[in-house]
Amino acid sequence: MRFTSQTTSDGIREQLFTLGEIPGALWTPEGATGPRPLVLMGHGGGQHKKAPGILFRAHRFVAECGFAVVAVDVPAHGDRPKDEEYGRIAAENGARVEAGEELAPLVADFQALVARRTVPEWRAVLDAVQRLEHVGDGPVGYWGVSLGCGLGVPFVAAEPRVRAAVLGLGGASATAAVEAAARITVPVEFLVQWDDERVPRAQSLALFDALASAEKTLHANPGKHGEMPAFELDSALRFFARHLG
Amino acid sequence: MRFTSQTTSDGIREQLFTLGEIPGALWTPEGATGPRPLVLMGHGGGQHKKAPGILFRAHRFVAECGFAVVAVDVPAHGDRPKDEEYGRIAAENGARVEAGEELAPLVADFQALVARRTVPEWRAVLDAVQRLEHVGDGPVGYWGVSLGCGLGVPFVAAEPRVRAAVLGLGGASATAAVEAAARITVPVEFLVQWDDERVPRAQSLALFDALASAEKTLHANPGKHGEMPAFELDSALRFFARHLG
Repeated sequence: MRFTSQTTSDGIREQLFTLGEIPGALWTPEGATGPRPLVLMGHGGGQHKKAPGILFRAHRFVAECGFAVVAVDVPAHGDRPKDEEYGRIAAENGARVEAGEELAPLVADFQALVARRTVPEWRAVLDAVQRLEHVGDGPVGYWGVSLGCGLGVPFVAAEPRVRAAVLGLGGASATAAVEAAARITVPVEFLVQWDDERVPRAQSLALFDALASAEKTLHANPGKHGEMPAFELDSALRFFARHLG
Repeated sequence: MRFTSQTTSDGIREQLFTLGEIPGALWTPEGATGPRPLVLMGHGGGQHKKAPGILFRAHRFVAECGFAVVAVDVPAHGDRPKDEEYGRIAAENGARVEAGEELAPLVADFQALVARRTVPEWRAVLDAVQRLEHVGDGPVGYWGVSLGCGLGVPFVAAEPRVRAAVLGLGGASATAAVEAAARITVPVEFLVQWDDERVPRAQSLALFDALASAEKTLHANPGKHGEMPAFELDSALRFFARHLG
């Protein structure tokens, strides 16, 4: 793990790093020492580790809960190089949707492919970040919607350190997603946009249904894929405070 | 409006009253003066104005938000006399379910019948309670699940003073319910028990769908009709604080 920059603003310390070929960002309270809860955040498709939605949420988790937050670029996103195979599949999928195929299953299959890389990458990031004195081996949470849900479901299923997860804007159109969801047993807050133009409502409900967690809450709000209401961030904060705090 | 008793405990004043033939209970902060938000709570089937779930929630709304809370007995519940027509319908419905008919539509039709009485009764209760100096004409909220949702949907649809409502454990099996829901435009938090043995899931989702509110949130949790998790009360408190506070 190599730190490439460090800045502090509004009481929040931001450290950019690389772990092997993975570029990441770590946010902690200024002057923090000792172990604390850690939230790993997965960004959306076409976004990156410092996309505005990630940055805004990370700042609130740190400022209001005293957590550490880490986010890394998904392959072919942010500061990472383009991936030839992913590019080819994306182009093929575009052509198939043009030709009338349903979008959701193509996206889900693609996410399952990417997850084969991100699950081990994110576990390695947890290993590295938890070795830092100001993060430590406290409880871990995961936050991710859309692509961050598609990659988050197999990650949460595979990683026993994750004790609670906020997921959503994702569906059960791939068998792999349903199978992974059925291995998740930690508390989950699951977000659905009721008029999601990208994820069919029934598939969102089916993914929620597939989670094996004894405590899981579905929050559905009107609006399209990108129109999640601001109060859901307040809810996520309380959810993590309850389960990691 | 005639007050029949007054007690105070834990900083909460409880006044029992009758308004015509309607027995009710009003909770306010001890020593409260001046106008404040008011929440009308509708109890569940077979329950009454001081059922444990009502009392517990009312105390928290008063203690944590400084609200006034009022609850009254639904006809044929609590301190009100049995109703011959309702008794006959309940017996008939029991026989029809025994004979293999679906329960939910029968319950919904029955609730629509009872609502013809409770909507004007509850509006009269608002009139009377809002004339009290320690309640006043602040913003009004409604909380009610199960029977409290079946009666609450037509009430919230009819009463412009209601600015926000928590509803749930109810479905869209009666046309009347869907039509009333389509007239509701205030923010709604809508509770669904994912494994509700009394309200079919699809009908719960359809009732949420029918609400015309621009801001509406569905909260679904695993478990049966009577197993709503405690953290949903925390959420309801914040919902009302946000919209009435």
